[in-house]
Amino acid sequence: MMNRVRILGLDPGLRRLGWGVIDVEGARLSWVAHGVIEPPQGDDLAVRLLNLFEGVNAVIAQWQPDEAAIEETFVNMNPSSTLKLGHARAAAMLAPARAGLVVAEYAALDIKKSVVGAGRAEKDQVLFMIKRLLPMAGKTEAGLPTDAADALACAVTHAHKRKMNGLKAALKRGAA
Amino acid sequence: MMNRVRILGLDPGLRRLGWGVIDVEGARLSWVAHGVIEPPQGDDLAVRLLNLFEGVNAVIAQWQPDEAAIEETFVNMNPSSTLKLGHARAAAMLAPARAGLVVAEYAALDIKKSVVGAGRAEKDQVLFMIKRLLPMAGKTEAGLPTDAADALACAVTHAHKRKMNGLKAALKRGAA
Repeated sequence: MMNRVRILGLDPGLRRLGWGVIDVEGARLSWVAHGVIEPPQGDDLAVRLLNLFEGVNAVIAQWQPDEAAIEETFVNMNPSSTLKLGHARAAAMLAPARAGLVVAEYAALDIKKSVVGAGRAEKDQVLFMIKRLLPMAGKTEAGLPTDAADALACAVTHAHKRKMNGLKAALKRGAA
Repeated sequence: MMNRVRILGLDPGLRRLGWGVIDVEGARLSWVAHGVIEPPQGDDLAVRLLNLFEGVNAVIAQWQPDEAAIEETFVNMNPSSTLKLGHARAAAMLAPARAGLVVAEYAALDIKKSVVGAGRAEKDQVLFMIKRLLPMAGKTEAGLPTDAADALACAVTHAHKRKMNGLKAALKRGAA
């Protein structure tokens, strides 16, 4: 019997933090919810981080995910942006960690490969594929913002990778 | 009548997070406590961040500071280190922010100027001056690690700056 696993995907940013929740049952993926957390600008950094952290806490309380996944940060950019993103990413990771969830990390390249089939995919292709893989995601009244699509893509990647890791572990057990 | 204000200073790092607590009463500074939080290495990033966050939470619960201060990150360095430091810094800031404390940020240069009198001061000079300004800090059985001295230096800077800001506000009120 297959168990349902609920995955929370996170696409962190200090201005906009995308999140998406999917259910995995065997090979079947289904959309549960998505959204974007936008802390009020102009507030102190600590207040903005708290806003992100409490926002992700609220998502976890409402949707009760079993596992979480977050995009790894691409560091080859403006150091000041890298630092800001590091702050936002930590605030986003702390919420599931505090709830006792494992937080898997995936490189942007792996997410694109997993969802689109090519590491050099454009943002639009990720959005397009997420709408194909999770048809309900595109049918919500509020629409599917890019940040939320990226978060769902991260959750989908985790769904693929955790299955592969499970198969590898099963093969290893079989070989032992 | 002067009110006592208790300040928590934080010197964030992913391997070692220094903290220091001082009391300010008028122009008088007194040492309260200091320490270093060292998350177990090798754990997942989310677990290490959680460890830092919970560590600072515990310090706040024990010492009940009124205000917090943290060093601003110097971004002109290795982007990967910058990113790691950003994560640690956010975890450290979130704890006081969640407890409702204002978290002031000071550049390393301003901290050195405030404590040593020169922006280009060496680490040793900060340690030396902190032991002079807060004699009790150097007399603890466990000694005064550099990271804790830096955290105390950040708290001392906040004590100086908040007084100046208070005077400026009073002058403004007087002029109005």
